[in-house]
Amino acid sequence: MLAEIITIGDEILIGQIVDTNSAWMAKQLNLIGIKVKQITSVSDDETHILEALRLAEGRAQIVLITGGLGPTKDDITKLTMAKYFNMDFRRDEETLEHVTKIFEKLKRPMIEGNIRQADVPDGCIVIQNKNGTAPCMWFNHNKKIFISMPGVPHEMMYLMDEEILPRLKDAFELPAIVHKTILTSGIGESFLAQQITSVEDALPEHIKLAYLPRLGQVRLRLSGTGSDEQVLKSEVEFYAQKIIAEVKSFVVVEDDIPLEKAVLDIMQASNLTLSTAESCTGGYLAHLITQHPGCSAVYAGGAVAYSYELKESILGVQESTLSSYGAVSEQTVVEMAAGAVKQFNTDYAIAVSGIAGPDGGTPDKPVGTVWIAVANRQNVQAKVFNFGNKRVQNIERSAIAALTMILGRLKQDHD
Amino acid sequence: MLAEIITIGDEILIGQIVDTNSAWMAKQLNLIGIKVKQITSVSDDETHILEALRLAEGRAQIVLITGGLGPTKDDITKLTMAKYFNMDFRRDEETLEHVTKIFEKLKRPMIEGNIRQADVPDGCIVIQNKNGTAPCMWFNHNKKIFISMPGVPHEMMYLMDEEILPRLKDAFELPAIVHKTILTSGIGESFLAQQITSVEDALPEHIKLAYLPRLGQVRLRLSGTGSDEQVLKSEVEFYAQKIIAEVKSFVVVEDDIPLEKAVLDIMQASNLTLSTAESCTGGYLAHLITQHPGCSAVYAGGAVAYSYELKESILGVQESTLSSYGAVSEQTVVEMAAGAVKQFNTDYAIAVSGIAGPDGGTPDKPVGTVWIAVANRQNVQAKVFNFGNKRVQNIERSAIAALTMILGRLKQDHD
Repeated sequence: MLAEIITIGDEILIGQIVDTNSAWMAKQLNLIGIKVKQITSVSDDETHILEALRLAEGRAQIVLITGGLGPTKDDITKLTMAKYFNMDFRRDEETLEHVTKIFEKLKRPMIEGNIRQADVPDGCIVIQNKNGTAPCMWFNHNKKIFISMPGVPHEMMYLMDEEILPRLKDAFELPAIVHKTILTSGIGESFLAQQITSVEDALPEHIKLAYLPRLGQVRLRLSGTGSDEQVLKSEVEFYAQKIIAEVKSFVVVEDDIPLEKAVLDIMQASNLTLSTAESCTGGYLAHLITQHPGCSAVYAGGAVAYSYELKESILGVQESTLSSYGAVSEQTVVEMAAGAVKQFNTDYAIAVSGIAGPDGGTPDKPVGTVWIAVANRQNVQAKVFNFGNKRVQNIERSAIAALTMILGRLKQDHD
Repeated sequence: MLAEIITIGDEILIGQIVDTNSAWMAKQLNLIGIKVKQITSVSDDETHILEALRLAEGRAQIVLITGGLGPTKDDITKLTMAKYFNMDFRRDEETLEHVTKIFEKLKRPMIEGNIRQADVPDGCIVIQNKNGTAPCMWFNHNKKIFISMPGVPHEMMYLMDEEILPRLKDAFELPAIVHKTILTSGIGESFLAQQITSVEDALPEHIKLAYLPRLGQVRLRLSGTGSDEQVLKSEVEFYAQKIIAEVKSFVVVEDDIPLEKAVLDIMQASNLTLSTAESCTGGYLAHLITQHPGCSAVYAGGAVAYSYELKESILGVQESTLSSYGAVSEQTVVEMAAGAVKQFNTDYAIAVSGIAGPDGGTPDKPVGTVWIAVANRQNVQAKVFNFGNKRVQNIERSAIAALTMILGRLKQDHD
């Protein structure tokens, strides 16, 4: 079963926003056995939208459309859909009631544009959008399904979770799709490929292997398609274990979870607590960890110690250490990590201090120099990294390196 | 001048990664006057890639392709490009030398897949990729330009910045494009539209207005296209000021910069310092701030005080406050903000404490209840918000609300 996603709106095409919707939608569709053939972003332009709809209809059975449903003049998705399906408009009373209630609750006056939100192409099925005023519209057309949703992420997510995915599951008999991801670190894509070439060559037609490199890591993803999910799972697992056996020392996590989730899972299982002491990562490490529900069982908190003053007052770094060795040094990062364990009373702490750039580099310590330390209550280990000269990437790479480092340490201490 | 972006690779279509490349590329292209007509994501499938190339060639003068250039079997972009242009392969000695050097530096053996990186379609212009082993390939074809780049973000960014954008500027006489963004808060999209309808109706054909709503904010974007950049700038500015005059009280920033950058700019201009005290935002607020180069002139750091213990030890929140009112309360958040000003010795502090969810809600304080306080050395103001039930959005909305709050406070204190 193939689907396509069309996102409508100039904001993506001028690069003002990143299209996070499509990846989220694709992931949910894959989980229920619907493959996404193409993702297309087009502008708020009738001719272009009509062409995109026609082409998508030629390639897929399901077309999901987001965006362009606002009450303003630049939003033309609804008009264009009506034209595509050659439909007139009707006023949907349930939608009007829903929109009216929202405005009553907000104590705001309703204007013509809001009332028009209730006008829908007369051949569509209206699905109420509890999180907003633009209704979701479902079109059955030539044995294919077209679904138009608002582009506001939380409205789209709610509609997909609660309405669209269950209805698609009912509408089709879907094949099973099983993915298995293996995260590796410290080995290049091509060298990895050479190591596992015999496994790759032996893969059956219905199981595919992809290499997904990103900032010093490579994710290996096996994807199998079939009819029996259980059989497929064990098949995919069989080949995954063969791959792991070939490259065991480079495998970080045998699962499609982010690194920080792997750290949290291992620590929670052993009843361990964690804190962070960040300089150049500036809260990013804490943010990665605290995205995950339930992280408070492991994570106590931490410091974003940007200034010397805070490194001393919150983390107990010695003034003499800072003045002798500087903030970006083994000595400082060791004191930061040990200080976090002590001050925040946790079993482990991760500390990061580096020069994210673009300024602040010196010949000795160029931009991209990052010290990372992991401490427990007994000892501290530190390591220096030399990343590039881009600030945002240095922050991200530092966080990945820090998480890889504590993961290694935890495996060593608790395996 | 129209361009299209084609991203190749299953990882986007199964939702494993978010396509951040396209937005970044679109932004850079817009800045030099090239409009992006469509962004298309397709899988590593020859027939599909060929169709995407053909369709893009029909709509645009420039086609930028990312991804599928790795040394492994699933990467077929190069083979497909050669087929599309009906070209043979040649070995590019300069690329081979470059790849060899990289492997020498890494002290890793070179394998067949790496050597093949130097094989390129014989009619393309090779552009060396200093950040990786896959070369960039430039094809002139039927008076159109096709450029194939690696999908690894920092490799693509480097190539765009240093090679592609300068060459495109040389290749075409480009029109000027001027954007102006006005960020509003606290007013709905349709009400906003009604307020500025007379300005919108009076816009000339070459200036367009778009509404970009996101989490309680609406960005208004004016985009003008013309020949004389200076004339265009003043025209766009003229209409922007007309819009601002209509909705002045809702305007947060008159610029296309993130909220936290506006906070940093205002504070730096007045020589003020800032710290943060975060509970439910878990370092996200600090991360937003520290993404920006030079933030250390304003930002001293902060605490991610997830546990009660850290709220007391780092921020000086009274144990009795926490036990009487709980962590998510006006009293606690006020003590957190005042504590941060005092402990971190800054002019201002922002504190956030709430229930991000999905667990931890009570009938009194459901998931999405968030207290935010802004303190300076004299006083503290606190406000409660009720967001939804999605963790990631609650974190994001809390950060936006906190930044909007301090921005309002700064304007009040220092205007």
